[in-house]
Amino acid sequence: MTDLRIGIVGVGMMGADHAERVARRTAGARLVAVCDPDAERAKALADALGGVRPIGDPLELIGDVEVDAVILASPGFAHAEQLFACLEHGKPVLCEKPLTMDAASSLRVVEAEHKVGRSLIQVGFMRRFDPEYAALKQLLDSGELGRTLLLHNVHRNKSVPATFRSEMIVRDSLVHEVDVARWLFDAEITRITVHAPKPTSLGGEGVLDPQLAVFELANGAIADVEVFVNFQVGYEVRCEAVAERGSATIGLGSGVFTRAGSQWGGAMPADYRVRFEAAYDIEVQRWVDATRRGEIDGPSAWDGYAAAAVCEAGIASLGSGRPVDVDLADRRKVLG
Amino acid sequence: MTDLRIGIVGVGMMGADHAERVARRTAGARLVAVCDPDAERAKALADALGGVRPIGDPLELIGDVEVDAVILASPGFAHAEQLFACLEHGKPVLCEKPLTMDAASSLRVVEAEHKVGRSLIQVGFMRRFDPEYAALKQLLDSGELGRTLLLHNVHRNKSVPATFRSEMIVRDSLVHEVDVARWLFDAEITRITVHAPKPTSLGGEGVLDPQLAVFELANGAIADVEVFVNFQVGYEVRCEAVAERGSATIGLGSGVFTRAGSQWGGAMPADYRVRFEAAYDIEVQRWVDATRRGEIDGPSAWDGYAAAAVCEAGIASLGSGRPVDVDLADRRKVLG
Amino acid sequence: MTDLRIGIVGVGMMGADHAERVARRTAGARLVAVCDPDAERAKALADALGGVRPIGDPLELIGDVEVDAVILASPGFAHAEQLFACLEHGKPVLCEKPLTMDAASSLRVVEAEHKVGRSLIQVGFMRRFDPEYAALKQLLDSGELGRTLLLHNVHRNKSVPATFRSEMIVRDSLVHEVDVARWLFDAEITRITVHAPKPTSLGGEGVLDPQLAVFELANGAIADVEVFVNFQVGYEVRCEAVAERGSATIGLGSGVFTRAGSQWGGAMPADYRVRFEAAYDIEVQRWVDATRRGEIDGPSAWDGYAAAAVCEAGIASLGSGRPVDVDLADRRKVLG
Amino acid sequence: MTDLRIGIVGVGMMGADHAERVARRTAGARLVAVCDPDAERAKALADALGGVRPIGDPLELIGDVEVDAVILASPGFAHAEQLFACLEHGKPVLCEKPLTMDAASSLRVVEAEHKVGRSLIQVGFMRRFDPEYAALKQLLDSGELGRTLLLHNVHRNKSVPATFRSEMIVRDSLVHEVDVARWLFDAEITRITVHAPKPTSLGGEGVLDPQLAVFELANGAIADVEVFVNFQVGYEVRCEAVAERGSATIGLGSGVFTRAGSQWGGAMPADYRVRFEAAYDIEVQRWVDATRRGEIDGPSAWDGYAAAAVCEAGIASLGSGRPVDVDLADRRKVLG
Repeated sequence: MTDLRIGIVGVGMMGADHAERVARRTAGARLVAVCDPDAERAKALADALGGVRPIGDPLELIGDVEVDAVILASPGFAHAEQLFACLEHGKPVLCEKPLTMDAASSLRVVEAEHKVGRSLIQVGFMRRFDPEYAALKQLLDSGELGRTLLLHNVHRNKSVPATFRSEMIVRDSLVHEVDVARWLFDAEITRITVHAPKPTSLGGEGVLDPQLAVFELANGAIADVEVFVNFQVGYEVRCEAVAERGSATIGLGSGVFTRAGSQWGGAMPADYRVRFEAAYDIEVQRWVDATRRGEIDGPSAWDGYAAAAVCEAGIASLGSGRPVDVDLADRRKVLG
Repeated sequence: MTDLRIGIVGVGMMGADHAERVARRTAGARLVAVCDPDAERAKALADALGGVRPIGDPLELIGDVEVDAVILASPGFAHAEQLFACLEHGKPVLCEKPLTMDAASSLRVVEAEHKVGRSLIQVGFMRRFDPEYAALKQLLDSGELGRTLLLHNVHRNKSVPATFRSEMIVRDSLVHEVDVARWLFDAEITRITVHAPKPTSLGGEGVLDPQLAVFELANGAIADVEVFVNFQVGYEVRCEAVAERGSATIGLGSGVFTRAGSQWGGAMPADYRVRFEAAYDIEVQRWVDATRRGEIDGPSAWDGYAAAAVCEAGIASLGSGRPVDVDLADRRKVLG
Repeated sequence: MTDLRIGIVGVGMMGADHAERVARRTAGARLVAVCDPDAERAKALADALGGVRPIGDPLELIGDVEVDAVILASPGFAHAEQLFACLEHGKPVLCEKPLTMDAASSLRVVEAEHKVGRSLIQVGFMRRFDPEYAALKQLLDSGELGRTLLLHNVHRNKSVPATFRSEMIVRDSLVHEVDVARWLFDAEITRITVHAPKPTSLGGEGVLDPQLAVFELANGAIADVEVFVNFQVGYEVRCEAVAERGSATIGLGSGVFTRAGSQWGGAMPADYRVRFEAAYDIEVQRWVDATRRGEIDGPSAWDGYAAAAVCEAGIASLGSGRPVDVDLADRRKVLG
Repeated sequence: MTDLRIGIVGVGMMGADHAERVARRTAGARLVAVCDPDAERAKALADALGGVRPIGDPLELIGDVEVDAVILASPGFAHAEQLFACLEHGKPVLCEKPLTMDAASSLRVVEAEHKVGRSLIQVGFMRRFDPEYAALKQLLDSGELGRTLLLHNVHRNKSVPATFRSEMIVRDSLVHEVDVARWLFDAEITRITVHAPKPTSLGGEGVLDPQLAVFELANGAIADVEVFVNFQVGYEVRCEAVAERGSATIGLGSGVFTRAGSQWGGAMPADYRVRFEAAYDIEVQRWVDATRRGEIDGPSAWDGYAAAAVCEAGIASLGSGRPVDVDLADRRKVLG
């Protein structure tokens, strides 16, 4: 089978990571084109990796006959137009989250893909590919612990730029746990409450950080999530699932255990790339493998839409600490 | 200084534990009298420990001139009358929780003690004496981690009798975290939401188990608590405090770490007596030491009353998942 | 039953700890006398605790009619004479390790006690009373893991004074694991090898630190021990027992688990008093309880002697890294 | 750059793993040929992977003009001849351990490669590529903990076939820690003692299992290793390095942490493939990358020879528990 020829739109931090991943660590794929508003950056990366064309216009890259499949690592506001272009050209696309900037436009993407009649869009909720999350999912699905009742999540960043607002905590951070909860329970989130304690003094002025969200799911389960984007210590993502016959926790870390300087312990990962590097590698390898078979193998456009709908309700609850119902389209009506 | 002569009212499981503790492991104290509705049980215990008088009537024990101080391990509904008797005789009393059966009667106890003009009542919230909780409190109060923002609590029992109802989960289990949150934050709880996921199939018919409570505190902090009284696995009490510069967790267990039968790990404690044995020993030793100095050294009657008020609001929220405000008397008006 | 009246010989750091323990945290005992070469220190302590007589001469304290039992916390070189005095007066004695300064004199103590015909001497190998070691012993003895094959031990101090010599590492530190291995395996140590890597540059000039000892036991089992008295980090005592069907480890620590300053982990205990405080409390309470029944309940004079014999062989091996046989008297001949 | 065309000799469990790794998870490489004494097996694998030729004779595969580089996963006794063939054809080769069956023949391989004048041989000590071992090496080399003094290693298998003899424990299992100790300390092992406790009753008749080896290194450091090939519980590889200012441990495991069935903990890996899967992937990717640059990037033929020399001394010590000096050629004389 010939290698899948991949073009990447947006080669900032995440896109550059993907470029190196595809070029150096992914079997069955070749990076053939990159595109970025910063043409210098695109050219430098193309040169460094070798055999890669810089292309100025994202829509040109998407339409290029030598590009078999696309990775979108452009800013979220650019996704809608680029996704529609991918659908038009029938190109499989791995789209970094968010799918689009709001639930309404995400729903239009879902409907447009449905009209095409093939699954072409995969959303970059890469937690599903993390070996620990995958093991947790497998354990819960095995039924060994009985039905899952509750989920406790912790999602912490060392710090974020001062421009990171309260709503972005919901939309850019909490959204990962929205997908995790939907995926682990295989059920939609119907109601969300976002509590905001008196915020840390070490975050941006007026930013509600940390936040404590409570999700109620269609199957009667409940999940809570602490999101804290200025935790100071490091990056931490933990998930404890509580079931009828026991609980299971991931994200407790490992690596080198030291006894030094009057302490026992180890280092917190600095950021998501340290924690989830393997997850990204697996996500892209599996996306390449599936795409070569003409399939998708990961979160769909609907998953991107549903996450957006929950986040919109979350932002509405933020600050009041009052529950807000999630307004979600009827899946059967949309997808038939 | 002469030994403190102690009488114990109620020698069921908890009272019998206290009897042995006072008789065999507490310096500066002597167990002189025990009382129980089951006179046989009281006599057997008195005989086994030696030098202890069984007394038939609790009020007679409380009034006995050879009893310097009282431990109440009787059922909660009997506490009010027995506490009033202790106040009347000016006898220091360590009262197992709950102080009384509802907030209104607890408030009357607070007022009656206030009239006596001396602190005589200590409530048995023994978590405060657990070395791990004490170390957590000390760390948070040191300011090393900055201001505390959030508390995540887990409180699980292996199982409870089928007679244990949804409200009892709030009143008998959650009440411990009510005290923990008030104590760690040194602030009252002003609002409570109790979520109930679809319950475990392994609990009592119609019992909402587990529950997920969210406390909002007067200082703007927030605490969440999972209470799960039919967890099947063992007894587990965990608390993670999240502060501006880091987090601190207790209750992760220790003991013997085994690699056996294809697993690494260790045994969960079977019940609270295994987990908190040292806490009870310390509580009683410190209560004896303080009582001999004419002081109390632990949670007061007010703490017992405030916990009752929060639990009443919790029960009102239970099932709806809607926030309920806590109706608490003005402390300055009550205590001057 | 009347309280056991206790006199303590030597109130330096360890003896003062025991004094407070007996006076304030031990049921059924009263501290009545203390003795120290530093008369001021003895008097100050006696005054602070109240109801305690300072006595100038250790032998006078041992012979005092109001002293029922003795704790020896004097320097090791003084033990032999004081132990003989205790035996002469028929006084039960808890003797801090070492029993005496060498195997030959320890054997004479064993023989002298045997002539008295009653067990009066208990040696202060307090690890046996540590709840974790006790749980390990119980697990191994249960047979659940099959026969125990190997023991891996780690014994580390933050640092020691520069006067602490290579031989003292064997005699004062390793001796604890000598007792642990004999006790856990219930077998004598027959051969010992002490390896010394190129020493740390942070210890005393010319001191072989760390050391790695290998014990061979009469039952065919083997134990290794790292002793490192200038570890810099803190105090650490770990023991892993490897058995036919699994392994069990103690000493992994617990307490408050923090995420702070880019690290996850916790604090190492500063010294043995933090790590083994509960063990000392239990040791003394159980010694008091047993003494009041006319028994001993812990390591005997023979255990003190056997440890001395192993340490002498260890010192002979030290530096060469060659195995040295242990020269131990025939227990049946000595004790009949 | 064109893909590296790889042929694999031996497609038993390990070779088949490598085949899938090269074919499906390695960038820049193509699997073009496989060879196995079991021709059916080779053909089935070639068919399953697609685009792969089965070749009957290993020397023919090595000499094939379409094979750029070779992976030897054949039995150890076949290595010498196949390595000489690789050297003759100037083909880079990744040789699973052992390099050859004894130190003498390994030395001849070292000398033959030296005559070729290029590094062509890499030995499959894949621990060096394990992210945890690599992090440990990096930490120790950083000097942050001061000079490394001691190494404690544990190497356990769930079980081995009854045909696995005492000497094989040294040659096939201990050999990994031989390489780890040489690599972490960057020093040769000069003396070895192998202690054998009374063996487990669950191993092969007459097999000395577990074993406790002590290495003395040229730089004065010491390492101990427990090897236990019938541990029953699972696969476990741990390494604690003790340095002047602290210690660092790897291999403590992670994954899903469960509380279930009265226990807290997790699953032990079943075998080395679970524990070291990532290490194998990294080893092969880095070997492919280096080979395309005309280099090797891992343990050399000398490392294979030195390991063999230490194991021979270890077998000589086995049973006696007496130290045996390692007979190693002078590296400067051999390699100039």
